[in-house]
Amino acid sequence: MTIPIVSTHVANIDIPRPKDVGVLAMEVYFPRRCISEAELEEFDGVSKGKYTIGLGQEYMAWPDDREDINSFALNAVAGLLEKYNIDPKSIGRIDVGTETIIDKSKSVKTHLMDLFAEAGNFDIEGIDSKNACYGSTAALFNAINWIESTSWDGRNAIVVAGDIAVYAEGAARPAGGAGACAILLGPNAPIVFEPIHGTHMSNTYDFYKPNLSSEYPEVDGPVSVVTYIAALDEAYSRFREKTARQLKLAQINGYSNGHVHSGDKPADPKAAFSLQDVDYALFHSPYGKQAVKGHARMLFNDFRSAPNAPQFADIPNPEAFLAASQKESLSDKNVEKTFIAASKKSFAQKTDPGMACSKRLGNMYTGSLYGCLASLVANVEPAQLRDSRVSMFAFGSGCAASFFTFRVKGDTSEIKEKMDLMNRLAAMKVVPCQEFVDALALREKNHNAVSYTPEGSIDNIWPGAFYLDSVDSKYRRKYVKAPLA
Amino acid sequence: MTIPIVSTHVANIDIPRPKDVGVLAMEVYFPRRCISEAELEEFDGVSKGKYTIGLGQEYMAWPDDREDINSFALNAVAGLLEKYNIDPKSIGRIDVGTETIIDKSKSVKTHLMDLFAEAGNFDIEGIDSKNACYGSTAALFNAINWIESTSWDGRNAIVVAGDIAVYAEGAARPAGGAGACAILLGPNAPIVFEPIHGTHMSNTYDFYKPNLSSEYPEVDGPVSVVTYIAALDEAYSRFREKTARQLKLAQINGYSNGHVHSGDKPADPKAAFSLQDVDYALFHSPYGKQAVKGHARMLFNDFRSAPNAPQFADIPNPEAFLAASQKESLSDKNVEKTFIAASKKSFAQKTDPGMACSKRLGNMYTGSLYGCLASLVANVEPAQLRDSRVSMFAFGSGCAASFFTFRVKGDTSEIKEKMDLMNRLAAMKVVPCQEFVDALALREKNHNAVSYTPEGSIDNIWPGAFYLDSVDSKYRRKYVKAPLA
Repeated sequence: MTIPIVSTHVANIDIPRPKDVGVLAMEVYFPRRCISEAELEEFDGVSKGKYTIGLGQEYMAWPDDREDINSFALNAVAGLLEKYNIDPKSIGRIDVGTETIIDKSKSVKTHLMDLFAEAGNFDIEGIDSKNACYGSTAALFNAINWIESTSWDGRNAIVVAGDIAVYAEGAARPAGGAGACAILLGPNAPIVFEPIHGTHMSNTYDFYKPNLSSEYPEVDGPVSVVTYIAALDEAYSRFREKTARQLKLAQINGYSNGHVHSGDKPADPKAAFSLQDVDYALFHSPYGKQAVKGHARMLFNDFRSAPNAPQFADIPNPEAFLAASQKESLSDKNVEKTFIAASKKSFAQKTDPGMACSKRLGNMYTGSLYGCLASLVANVEPAQLRDSRVSMFAFGSGCAASFFTFRVKGDTSEIKEKMDLMNRLAAMKVVPCQEFVDALALREKNHNAVSYTPEGSIDNIWPGAFYLDSVDSKYRRKYVKAPLA
Repeated sequence: MTIPIVSTHVANIDIPRPKDVGVLAMEVYFPRRCISEAELEEFDGVSKGKYTIGLGQEYMAWPDDREDINSFALNAVAGLLEKYNIDPKSIGRIDVGTETIIDKSKSVKTHLMDLFAEAGNFDIEGIDSKNACYGSTAALFNAINWIESTSWDGRNAIVVAGDIAVYAEGAARPAGGAGACAILLGPNAPIVFEPIHGTHMSNTYDFYKPNLSSEYPEVDGPVSVVTYIAALDEAYSRFREKTARQLKLAQINGYSNGHVHSGDKPADPKAAFSLQDVDYALFHSPYGKQAVKGHARMLFNDFRSAPNAPQFADIPNPEAFLAASQKESLSDKNVEKTFIAASKKSFAQKTDPGMACSKRLGNMYTGSLYGCLASLVANVEPAQLRDSRVSMFAFGSGCAASFFTFRVKGDTSEIKEKMDLMNRLAAMKVVPCQEFVDALALREKNHNAVSYTPEGSIDNIWPGAFYLDSVDSKYRRKYVKAPLA
């Protein structure tokens, strides 16, 4: 891939913003091993379907103490640079989103600078963004905004989104996962982000990590379930309101982008945008079932804005769904059930093509939504993906959420080919559940340790991948590459 | 202050970037108590001058367990909103820079959302940026870039920069400090940031916080001293190179901004920018002496680029300073001594007016450089400050550094008056050193504790300020306001 560089190293004062900023290239890194959630049900002695149907999980990836967030990020970025033959000097910014904090001060980003040292490129802006699973989306927005700012110097940006999601023994453990995405961003991209963001942020204690000496989070189950859906309602509403205002402005100014609804004007201006305006809808997916619920909730919002639309003709007892307040609807199991059923076909068409990483790797936290993007590119033929419009719902507990969209304006063939995602996911080793339990015990034992050499076997590292060699007496971490096969 | 709102809630697609993005308003929050570093020398039984001359420190602020980074940020932002009568709905983005991590997932930003809930504004982008003391500068750049991006919706942004800098007993303890700045950013501002950033990032272990269960950092003294200065050399060089390229471009295009050097063309294009091009030069100031060294190093860089300039006529034995490599010069005490002496007057004129917060509060980590900005506005008469140009050197260990500039294009009277910084710093209680030692013991005891009520007295909280009321059994933190006096 020839990565277009508009100019180098000169701040473009008063030069118009570059056009079509988006994804030029992409890579996903993940551990070599995974376990089957069906086997884990048996291993844990829980009822069949608890993880596979209840959570909607199929497999889950995890590293032992040979990998950490720095080695994950190094692998994702090194893979990106190598596969696409990117000149390290062509990078002017790197933003990392992660909630896997192994140092309260030093950023993951500083470790990535090792990949650019040989080329002599130390002039790379951007550090780490933190708020649960939302850090990646903040990183993405920040990198795009840099390219659109007067401070942009013509070089491309990289966004890294990755985490190691591990839980204490108990109900949440099967909802873990691991992986990291690296995304090359620049102008004139085949995948182009649109400017409107519908955002919702508020102070919640649904999932958080206040126990600094543990790698595990605190999770308030009941609060957590509602927070995601409530944030989706709000972020999606803000997005739709802004879209409606923009359409109105465009109409006033004599423009139309083809998305103005004709016929009877809906009473709710939010109806200016619905699921029907996108070809694909991607959701932050802590587990598969959450994406199903998110998709259904989007449809529920569409229904509330335009209940008389033909697509809702089969919704049973619609008055009840319209009479309830938004707050009441959050905990109404009948709402969930009805709209999951009503959106089944839509989910299969618009969301499932983006679920490959979630199904194989589990929850990548910040990487989850961008794993959906990678899966979509990997699963859909470039000719079919071209000219499609895709929505993204980003969510991080605490909480921070944004709803936004992108358009596929160019050819995604090279990204699909270079990522080689489906083959690589298939090549993972599916191992017995005891290996997973042992690996997590090893992580617990060595979490935050000083003066130690990890115990995990190098055989479980992909050939040529970075891993943690040792932590010295001053907590300094050393990374080396596994031998090539 | 009437905060200008260009438009509300509509993404300005294809509308040109807004002009003159910068500081519209500012607030600094700090604890009510401080100790004298001279008294601390006596208290610690060290040689007189070790802290006051060796480190260049005068006083140091610190909170006990009644305050944390969330209450700091709440106070800075609440103060900003109240003093300037800012409509909470006029804010579209908040970026927090901090390295005081009390939750590995939940951002400080989410706590700030409580200040906007009553107004019903939950659509506020931005989360926390992390890399040592550089998080604030990343937050600033990200907020400015948002305003310059196509995603900007016409609202203003707030940047929060704050930390609680505490050290284990030993040599580093007197270099602590505490405080938080809140900055309102928008277009058509009196203090306008310029677009060129000279950045240097690399993988160093100078100061870091790998021991997650402790509030204290690991510091590698010898590495730390060199890292700051080496990063300044590189960031300043990149800035000067970019400035030179921009000037060349401007000349090609027939423009000149008055900063092109006349007469003999210097051999080194970096000479296109020097200390002489700014009226004030602000430096990240972990302690006062570091700013002195930073200023001297800037002059040393200027000297290396244009040794024959008249201002360097009195430098003794200039050939020796020119012959040494940049690396050799980093550890050359004679370089440091010579250029500190040569820059004494320049420091007093250009840097010292920005040192008020550093002198009274000590190290605010991410807040340090922005405390310099606040001090400059507080100390210099608006008529004198107007039309001046100011340089900023941001540094965070690990490491990340940027050199950039702003111009004062408007009246800073209202900011100076509303911040009331000098009076408020003077109103702090200077207390016996034992109170400081006791407070840090209390922080150690209660760090990361669960189910507890802080023991610190409310009398040490400013009237009307937020403080930590309690942490419940699920680690959830509750903040309340101290009674008004």
